[in-house]
Amino acid sequence: MKGKFYVIGVGPGDSELMTLKAARLLEKCPVWLAPTGRKGGESTALGIVEGVVSSDSKEILTHYFPMKKIRMGQTPDSEVKAAWDQAASLIVARLQAGFDVAFPTLGDPAIYSTGFYVCETLLEQDPDLLVEIVPGVSAIGASAAAAGQPLCLGDDRLVVIPATFENGQLRETLEKFDSIVLMKVHRVMDRLVPLLEELNLMDKAVLVERTSQSGQRIRRDLKVAMHEEQHYFSTMIVRK
Amino acid sequence: MKGKFYVIGVGPGDSELMTLKAARLLEKCPVWLAPTGRKGGESTALGIVEGVVSSDSKEILTHYFPMKKIRMGQTPDSEVKAAWDQAASLIVARLQAGFDVAFPTLGDPAIYSTGFYVCETLLEQDPDLLVEIVPGVSAIGASAAAAGQPLCLGDDRLVVIPATFENGQLRETLEKFDSIVLMKVHRVMDRLVPLLEELNLMDKAVLVERTSQSGQRIRRDLKVAMHEEQHYFSTMIVRK
Repeated sequence: MKGKFYVIGVGPGDSELMTLKAARLLEKCPVWLAPTGRKGGESTALGIVEGVVSSDSKEILTHYFPMKKIRMGQTPDSEVKAAWDQAASLIVARLQAGFDVAFPTLGDPAIYSTGFYVCETLLEQDPDLLVEIVPGVSAIGASAAAAGQPLCLGDDRLVVIPATFENGQLRETLEKFDSIVLMKVHRVMDRLVPLLEELNLMDKAVLVERTSQSGQRIRRDLKVAMHEEQHYFSTMIVRK
Repeated sequence: MKGKFYVIGVGPGDSELMTLKAARLLEKCPVWLAPTGRKGGESTALGIVEGVVSSDSKEILTHYFPMKKIRMGQTPDSEVKAAWDQAASLIVARLQAGFDVAFPTLGDPAIYSTGFYVCETLLEQDPDLLVEIVPGVSAIGASAAAAGQPLCLGDDRLVVIPATFENGQLRETLEKFDSIVLMKVHRVMDRLVPLLEELNLMDKAVLVERTSQSGQRIRRDLKVAMHEEQHYFSTMIVRK
C-alpha cells in the first residue's frame, strides 16, 4: 500500500502554536520534506517542528523552493517548475515504497504557502496518491493576537494584499475596506508610510515583525519604523 | 496577585486542530467562560475543548453573547453591552481572587469572534488586568484545506466579506479580487448563486459546511446546494 502525503501547517513560529494534529502526524511520518527559501538555507518550518517532535529517527529531506510569482494550473517558470518536479520525485519514491511523508509549512497552508503546488505536482506524477492538507495558525491571525487588535468583527470586510502593489491600487483598497492586512511590507515601507499618512491612517496601523518568534516586535510608530530595516516576516494590520 | 485572562482560539471544530498552547492553557486555568450563541444553548467552543482537556475540576461559566453588528470603541446596543458587562463582572471577580480564566472561542480570535470585546470590557472594569490573546486555526483556512483549494498564492489579493452585503458591492468584490471568502452564505444562497452564474464563477466556487466538524460537507454543485438548507457554519471560497 502506498503512503500518504501530508501538507502540515505548523503555525507562525512558536512551536506551541502547532496543532495537536500537526504534532501527531509529524510523529507518525517517517519522512519529512522541509522547504527552504534560500539555497542551502535552514528551514524555518523544520525548526518549529523540532521544538516539539524529535527528528532523530526521521529521514529529513530539505528542499529549496524559489519564491516567485506563480499561479495554480498555469505553467510556472522553469526554475520553479524544476524545483517542484524534483521535490515531487523525492516524495513519490517514498510514498510508492509505502512511507508516509510530511511536508511542514509555515503558518497556514492556504495562505501564501508552497504546499498546494507540491500536491499538484505530485498528482501529476501519480494521480492515485493520497494527499491531505492540515490547516495551521496563520501569521495573520497570530500578528493580530500579538498586537491585541482584531482583524474583523461584525460585518467588517477584510482584505489581505501584498504591499508591493502600486500605490493607486493600495490607496483604493485602504479607502474602501474596514480592515487591511499588508504582506511583504519590508520592501516598500518608504512609499507605504507616506500613503498611510496621506489617508490619515497612521494611528490605525500596527506593524508586527516575526510574530510569535523570538525577536517579535510590535511597532505602532511607523515613522520611526520606516527608517529601520524590516524583517522579511513583517505584517501590517490597518483597521479603521 | 491577580489572575490572567486568556482568550483562546480553539479552531474550527475538530478538537485535534487545537494548538498545544491552547490545550496547555486550558489545563492550567481553573475557570472557563464559554460563550453560547443562543440563550441556554450549548457552547460549541466548550465542546471542542472537552475533546482534549477534562472539564471535571473546572468552574465552567457559560454565557450568552447576542450576535449583533458591533464595532470596537463604539457603544454597542444595550442588550449586547449588558451581556459583555455581565460576563466581565463574572470574570473580574475570579481574576481579582487570583484565578486564571480562559475564554475558549471558535476558530481564530481575530476573525469575527467575541473575545476582543470581552477584553475591552474587562479592561474598562479594571485597567490593570493581564490579558493574552492566543491565536487559533481559522474556519477559513480549515475550509480551504478541506476543499483542497488554496486561498492565496504568489501575489493574490484575498477578500473576506459577509455575503449579506448588497449585490452591487458583492459583484464589484467578486470582479476585482483573486480570491474571495464569503461568510454567512446560509442566508443568501438564493441571490448569491445567480450572481456567481452571471459572473461566470460557478466553477471557481466551493462551499464548505461545518468544516472539520462531524457532518462536514464540501459542495461544488452550487445549483443543487442552493435549493437545500445551509448550515450556519458555511463558508464559500471563490478563487479565480
